[in-house]
Amino acid sequence: MPLIDLNSTLGESFGPWKIGMDDAMLRIVSSASIACGFHAGDPLIMQTTTGAARRADVGIGAQPGYPDLQGFGRRNMNMTPYEIYAYTLYQIGALQAICRANNVKLEYVKPQGALYERGSSDLPVAKSIACAVRDASKNLILVGQATSCFESAAAEVGISFAAEIYADRGYHEDGTLVPRGERGDVIADPRAATDRILRLLGEGLLETIAGTTIPMKVHTLGIHGDYPNAPQFAFAIKEALEENGCTVARMREVLEPGAGEGEALSVEEGQEFVENLAPL
Amino acid sequence: MPLIDLNSTLGESFGPWKIGMDDAMLRIVSSASIACGFHAGDPLIMQTTTGAARRADVGIGAQPGYPDLQGFGRRNMNMTPYEIYAYTLYQIGALQAICRANNVKLEYVKPQGALYERGSSDLPVAKSIACAVRDASKNLILVGQATSCFESAAAEVGISFAAEIYADRGYHEDGTLVPRGERGDVIADPRAATDRILRLLGEGLLETIAGTTIPMKVHTLGIHGDYPNAPQFAFAIKEALEENGCTVARMREVLEPGAGEGEALSVEEGQEFVENLAPL
Amino acid sequence: MPLIDLNSTLGESFGPWKIGMDDAMLRIVSSASIACGFHAGDPLIMQTTTGAARRADVGIGAQPGYPDLQGFGRRNMNMTPYEIYAYTLYQIGALQAICRANNVKLEYVKPQGALYERGSSDLPVAKSIACAVRDASKNLILVGQATSCFESAAAEVGISFAAEIYADRGYHEDGTLVPRGERGDVIADPRAATDRILRLLGEGLLETIAGTTIPMKVHTLGIHGDYPNAPQFAFAIKEALEENGCTVARMREVLEPGAGEGEALSVEEGQEFVENLAPL
Amino acid sequence: MPLIDLNSTLGESFGPWKIGMDDAMLRIVSSASIACGFHAGDPLIMQTTTGAARRADVGIGAQPGYPDLQGFGRRNMNMTPYEIYAYTLYQIGALQAICRANNVKLEYVKPQGALYERGSSDLPVAKSIACAVRDASKNLILVGQATSCFESAAAEVGISFAAEIYADRGYHEDGTLVPRGERGDVIADPRAATDRILRLLGEGLLETIAGTTIPMKVHTLGIHGDYPNAPQFAFAIKEALEENGCTVARMREVLEPGAGEGEALSVEEGQEFVENLAPL
Repeated sequence: MPLIDLNSTLGESFGPWKIGMDDAMLRIVSSASIACGFHAGDPLIMQTTTGAARRADVGIGAQPGYPDLQGFGRRNMNMTPYEIYAYTLYQIGALQAICRANNVKLEYVKPQGALYERGSSDLPVAKSIACAVRDASKNLILVGQATSCFESAAAEVGISFAAEIYADRGYHEDGTLVPRGERGDVIADPRAATDRILRLLGEGLLETIAGTTIPMKVHTLGIHGDYPNAPQFAFAIKEALEENGCTVARMREVLEPGAGEGEALSVEEGQEFVENLAPL
Repeated sequence: MPLIDLNSTLGESFGPWKIGMDDAMLRIVSSASIACGFHAGDPLIMQTTTGAARRADVGIGAQPGYPDLQGFGRRNMNMTPYEIYAYTLYQIGALQAICRANNVKLEYVKPQGALYERGSSDLPVAKSIACAVRDASKNLILVGQATSCFESAAAEVGISFAAEIYADRGYHEDGTLVPRGERGDVIADPRAATDRILRLLGEGLLETIAGTTIPMKVHTLGIHGDYPNAPQFAFAIKEALEENGCTVARMREVLEPGAGEGEALSVEEGQEFVENLAPL
Repeated sequence: MPLIDLNSTLGESFGPWKIGMDDAMLRIVSSASIACGFHAGDPLIMQTTTGAARRADVGIGAQPGYPDLQGFGRRNMNMTPYEIYAYTLYQIGALQAICRANNVKLEYVKPQGALYERGSSDLPVAKSIACAVRDASKNLILVGQATSCFESAAAEVGISFAAEIYADRGYHEDGTLVPRGERGDVIADPRAATDRILRLLGEGLLETIAGTTIPMKVHTLGIHGDYPNAPQFAFAIKEALEENGCTVARMREVLEPGAGEGEALSVEEGQEFVENLAPL
Repeated sequence: MPLIDLNSTLGESFGPWKIGMDDAMLRIVSSASIACGFHAGDPLIMQTTTGAARRADVGIGAQPGYPDLQGFGRRNMNMTPYEIYAYTLYQIGALQAICRANNVKLEYVKPQGALYERGSSDLPVAKSIACAVRDASKNLILVGQATSCFESAAAEVGISFAAEIYADRGYHEDGTLVPRGERGDVIADPRAATDRILRLLGEGLLETIAGTTIPMKVHTLGIHGDYPNAPQFAFAIKEALEENGCTVARMREVLEPGAGEGEALSVEEGQEFVENLAPL
């Protein structure tokens, strides 16, 4: 009976501007990938989103990105691996403190946007990110595209790796994402998306846009949260998975079945002052 | 034989722009207050400064400020206590991760510039900052102006407080700083500065610009690091203190004599990859 | 037959984040106050909004604000008048160039958020803003709260002033806005709002929340564009004004009836390349 | 008797951080390329630098860059031509207003750092920049590397082009810059640099690092202003040029000998208030 994690990007609002249907997604997914203020999110939104994820009993991950708010982290920037290391470490640390303040543990790190794409095929970049994850905490899981450079980077650096594919995106025969705008980039039909995922989880084979299959092991499914019917799509995927005998579980449980979700957490009394400070 | 900490603000460069003589100051002070990227500093500079402070065997503190690079954190911003809580927590967390990556512990937090001044006399603001410090780690020391709101905020929130005065700045009879530009704001003569400090450490009395004295207990002396002869001034102060029987020690040792400097630290091998990434 | 301008704040999106119903508002108002990138807006959004305003044949104004995206320009910052002068001039210039590129003239400048509030009662700040407006172009109109410091600043500096009140906000007997959150801050009923405005335009008397009236001359009504039924509210106000014999006209025409709208504008052929570059 | 312009990048400080020896350079060069706030500079520094350039009777150009302060505009960003168009137009406009406020005309635009490099070999990018220049004002000169895409972009768009080479940098046989860090990248000896330039101005031939020559026509020499002996180097170049019969002149005069420097300028009285606001 296969275990699988569902993760969605959350906390992508910024200042007064809203993106995403975080409340709805938190009722569906098992993991929340939270933006860390460089490409989206800010300290207030990170605090709010972390609190909401804790209350929803969902695993929490950091989603560090390029320092480019106007471009939403989607424009590649020609940074050195060392710059990427330092920027990633900074962002993870910021969210770790917010997690501690909310009495919850950070479970994983998943790079965002253009950084995710670049690290998938650029080993020194992937290794810089893996080092930042390890240096922030040896217990963190690095999430990256299945069969990408992130997998070998995590192994080299000695941290856990969770392989991801997007439930609603097409893949080439070499395991890379079909870029947006090309034929087969998006799988809009939840039924088709679910069939592909079920086969992947059952047989370990991913159907490519060429109609062939490639062997693949995945631990988490990425679910986009920022288009109109995202919650409906996510819910349909989850329901179909469960109807077909899969169990949706947090990333750590998928990687190490039986590991549980870590220590039991209880909100401490000191937080009350802070919660009283917060806007309604 | 009185113990006293000397702290200086470091890591205040940004991108390609340099401020401060960090290398010289690190040979003199016992504590480095490191800017956290909102008013000065950036992830690369934080990484470099933290590594240099570890090698100099100096205590490390976070210096969170307002998000205002152009104003260097010196222009007050009308933020709510909750906003200040979240912004402070974010900045502390970022530096905590960089400290972990450098295998060194963050010891304290000292608010910067206009945030330091505002919290000194505004209790809800001081308490928000104290909460952020506590939520980042219960073992952190909050540093603030002696006899200011920070002292009562730390007590209420249950964290340690280190009282600071500036060695080179004048104080009013109510214990507040003489604002820059007013008569008596700066004590430029190291001899005069040292005499005042020695009396403060010996008798517990601070001379004010009115010529009177007020009772005061201090744990750390703030030393500015960004004017031309800052290292010379700092060195003169330190030498005079030691000649007169004072011992310069890290903040934790001043607060709890005999506590030592915490666990022995050793650089781990994993850091080598990162150090190889770094520019010369 | 009184003339009155209706202005609304537009172009307040940022990067991927949307705020406001600009398309709907552009069909109703006579003037578009466009955010200039410091508190909201960015070069792409300014370009798009300016083009849309030109096509809607609406007057265009710059809305400079504090450099505080996270706070949306609503948190006061302790800047000197000289800093405010330079920041305002910079933002106006950026929009002027975008206007030239769209073959349309910038007509006015209206400070935003906390800068608008501060300049209303702080004459050196109001004068700094007025100087920036004059130095950007002597033909620009400064828009500010009726009977505020902006009026005297404009007179001193030698530029035109357009007095504004908000159609949907309450005012005290001294002519100042009732702050948000206090009793009488918002007039949610379009009928009540319109009655007050009609009396103001007809008799030159503004009803205050104390139930009294104060003499006032206004040239433009500010209409908020960022709450759910903003277009409906704006349309109701406009319709009632026109039914009662008022004419809605651009700001310049209100200040100098018969002045017309300036030179006829025609899009030049060179713009085609740029328009081809633009996303659909 | 050849005419040549000397331009240097100025106004590259930011907030409290200083870079460059602007005062010294302004006594030597004929044109000041002023940073516009995206990669360096800010509204206050732009205002100060523009005033200083006017007093030094030096031509003023805008130097727009990528929005990347931490990277100083030197990290390429994967922006579309349309994004580059809008960002460039915004920055030019901001400096144009500051020029008007200082009663001086903006003469030219020279892209900065990674944007300069990218536009040199990427025609759609070069054309986007040329369109932004034209749309800001048809009278502006576009400055770019000699024999680069900027030249054809300016021709297509219908604006003047000034060809530049760096006096202190090596060039390949295809006319491209030798990248920093490669052999022959920098010509540190003023004598060698001057000999190469004199031959270029006299014979129209540029010596490459391969020892060959390529035909080239240049209008302006770029002089770096941010390394220790920059003013000495610049002065040595200028002196040698003049001793060998060259005349250093502003860019417009080089492009159209006899055109003069445009209208006579006189500071207007209104500026006095602003000048009184400015810090000493």
